[in-house]
Amino acid sequence: MSGGVAGPEIERLIQLLARLPGLGPRSARRAALHLIRKREELLAPLADALQAARTSVVTCRTCGNIDSRDPCTLCQDQRRSRDTLVVVETVADLWALERSGAIATRYHVLGGTLSPLDGIGPKDLNLASLARRVAAGGVKELVLALNATVDGQATAHYIANQLGDLNVTITRLALGVPVGGELDYLDEGTLAAAIRSRTPF
Amino acid sequence: MSGGVAGPEIERLIQLLARLPGLGPRSARRAALHLIRKREELLAPLADALQAARTSVVTCRTCGNIDSRDPCTLCQDQRRSRDTLVVVETVADLWALERSGAIATRYHVLGGTLSPLDGIGPKDLNLASLARRVAAGGVKELVLALNATVDGQATAHYIANQLGDLNVTITRLALGVPVGGELDYLDEGTLAAAIRSRTPF
Repeated sequence: MSGGVAGPEIERLIQLLARLPGLGPRSARRAALHLIRKREELLAPLADALQAARTSVVTCRTCGNIDSRDPCTLCQDQRRSRDTLVVVETVADLWALERSGAIATRYHVLGGTLSPLDGIGPKDLNLASLARRVAAGGVKELVLALNATVDGQATAHYIANQLGDLNVTITRLALGVPVGGELDYLDEGTLAAAIRSRTPF
Repeated sequence: MSGGVAGPEIERLIQLLARLPGLGPRSARRAALHLIRKREELLAPLADALQAARTSVVTCRTCGNIDSRDPCTLCQDQRRSRDTLVVVETVADLWALERSGAIATRYHVLGGTLSPLDGIGPKDLNLASLARRVAAGGVKELVLALNATVDGQATAHYIANQLGDLNVTITRLALGVPVGGELDYLDEGTLAAAIRSRTPF
């Protein structure tokens, strides 16, 4: 990877770094050199942080979020509404919604979407636990915050069908023009959705 | 960074990953989630590899390369010519030349370029050790494989001036059209250099 001239420790580090999303072989080499150059300021703390994450990070058995405690910080936060439950595909989506600051609520992480072609069926997602949480009562609104993709929307429809009999309002994210978006660059589907869901000025 | 909803261990991991070249805050979050998802296949080996690099990687006191031994593998390689010494700015450049497979020689890593504006003078680079290596004799040709940038070329001129009195031939990399390059996309400086240094067909 570095032409075989660096020691096996460095070769191995480069190979592992190259498996991170966003880093290829070339940037993994740059990252390895950067780490070695900043041994005390960056390499050592990163080694420690990985070790800490390895031992302490757990998946919340209630909602599927990851945290160093179970139930997670969000599930333990008494200020968060129990009326509304936001269903997301991944922990990354949960983090994105939290960054938006738009809602202080609880979540349920599915762990993906239904995808028959990839062999991912209902049993592979956290759907049974979702049904149990809703059936246990207290949830008034279920927000399906799934990606606006074919798989995401198919999964949303599946959930709406399965949980439609329970006494809960099911909503989904609005479709429309993204903030800062220029119409000329948007696809037809987004524009059509934005027109259909137009709101009073 | 993740909206403060993940535990402090994850926050710290994200912050450190974001300091790697090539990763920003968003890709650092993705990388952290990827690592946590692949805890045994990737996170644990990466933690171990960083720990190994932290303790075992040293800078070669002869040439400035990094390796797990000093003198480094290249300096110990008896098959490599001692006649020619290739001067590079960084270890990354050394690796790049080794990948090219064009020359089996020894190197001298300067650790950067002269840059008066950034306060980097001759004493901040491995120039004294280069002069000592050349003065010790045995080196017939010094190849200045520095970047074709203003700083790189200024540093090359400085070295040529300093070592010109020693009995050594000083060369530099050819300037010209990169292999696979299309003339229409190249800058004028490169084209002018390629014309000036044209070779018989």
